[in-house]
Amino acid sequence: MADERTTSIVRRLKSVEGHVRGIERMVEEGAYCVDVVNQILAVQRALKKVSAAVLDHHLHSCVTHAVRGSDDAAKERVLRELMEVFEATGKA
Amino acid sequence: MADERTTSIVRRLKSVEGHVRGIERMVEEGAYCVDVVNQILAVQRALKKVSAAVLDHHLHSCVTHAVRGSDDAAKERVLRELMEVFEATGKA
Amino acid sequence: MADERTTSIVRRLKSVEGHVRGIERMVEEGAYCVDVVNQILAVQRALKKVSAAVLDHHLHSCVTHAVRGSDDAAKERVLRELMEVFEATGKA
Amino acid sequence: MADERTTSIVRRLKSVEGHVRGIERMVEEGAYCVDVVNQILAVQRALKKVSAAVLDHHLHSCVTHAVRGSDDAAKERVLRELMEVFEATGKA
Repeated sequence: MADERTTSIVRRLKSVEGHVRGIERMVEEGAYCVDVVNQILAVQRALKKVSAAVLDHHLHSCVTHAVRGSDDAAKERVLRELMEVFEATGKA
Repeated sequence: MADERTTSIVRRLKSVEGHVRGIERMVEEGAYCVDVVNQILAVQRALKKVSAAVLDHHLHSCVTHAVRGSDDAAKERVLRELMEVFEATGKA
Repeated sequence: MADERTTSIVRRLKSVEGHVRGIERMVEEGAYCVDVVNQILAVQRALKKVSAAVLDHHLHSCVTHAVRGSDDAAKERVLRELMEVFEATGKA
Repeated sequence: MADERTTSIVRRLKSVEGHVRGIERMVEEGAYCVDVVNQILAVQRALKKVSAAVLDHHLHSCVTHAVRGSDDAAKERVLRELMEVFEATGKA
């Protein structure tokens, strides 16, 4: 991935990491269960956005490249991977 | 939460934290987008299991207590919170 | 379930049924794939709301009854079912 | 969509329709709430598979065509639509 994009994605992952660390403290300090679950849901939403950013880049780079190329097997592999990500997404 | 349970949940959150740190390195080292997305999906599944453990405890403690209690407003609040968690779960 | 609630849930399911029938026609008439997928997503959101209504009733009836009762096995079964529904929800 | 594919997707949607009709009867006959919710979850899984089949076809037809074409705006629109479907999927 391009440098700027890499930096932005790493920054968001570091923020997720900090958020998870905060949840650990909440649990240690005996926070209310529902508050813990809601913070975990917030982390999951943040991760979903990181996934979307990575996937958006993927569509504009690897997928575009493979679909335009003359290697049919490479194109098929890239489209199959997209389908697998799509199918796994609703289940995570 | 009981000490043993707390320890187990914190341990799992620390493992999630380490997993996220590993994804940061993957991104910095230019890993393939689909591999990054799949690792993020794995973290989301792990977080879902932590949520389930916290919620299971919640059902057996606060929810049981509130439903058995004589304070109807407290019971309603606890059931409404459960519904909110349920509705947010499929959307995270 | 109480009569009024039953009627309301059946009405919403009939609306879902009609929506699905509309999607069949869209597909037969060669509608754009993304429009078809978006209509399927709308049906899934409608079903999620029906589930929530059924579950909300369940919490106020069976779950409340079992948690207040003296049969510990029945209480455990009801809470385990809730956890199973919660875990399946994010995966459907 | 090609005829055979159309037929297969319409058949699967008709099966979903029948499944929903069955759930209406369950509700009318006073079935256990958790059984109703589980049947709704099964319908949602079936719809997810129909979406996947439609999307797979879309990738191999419209997306491939737009990405290979010389109209950059059309390509961007198709990729943006894919991202919107991806983002809506986890939330349905």
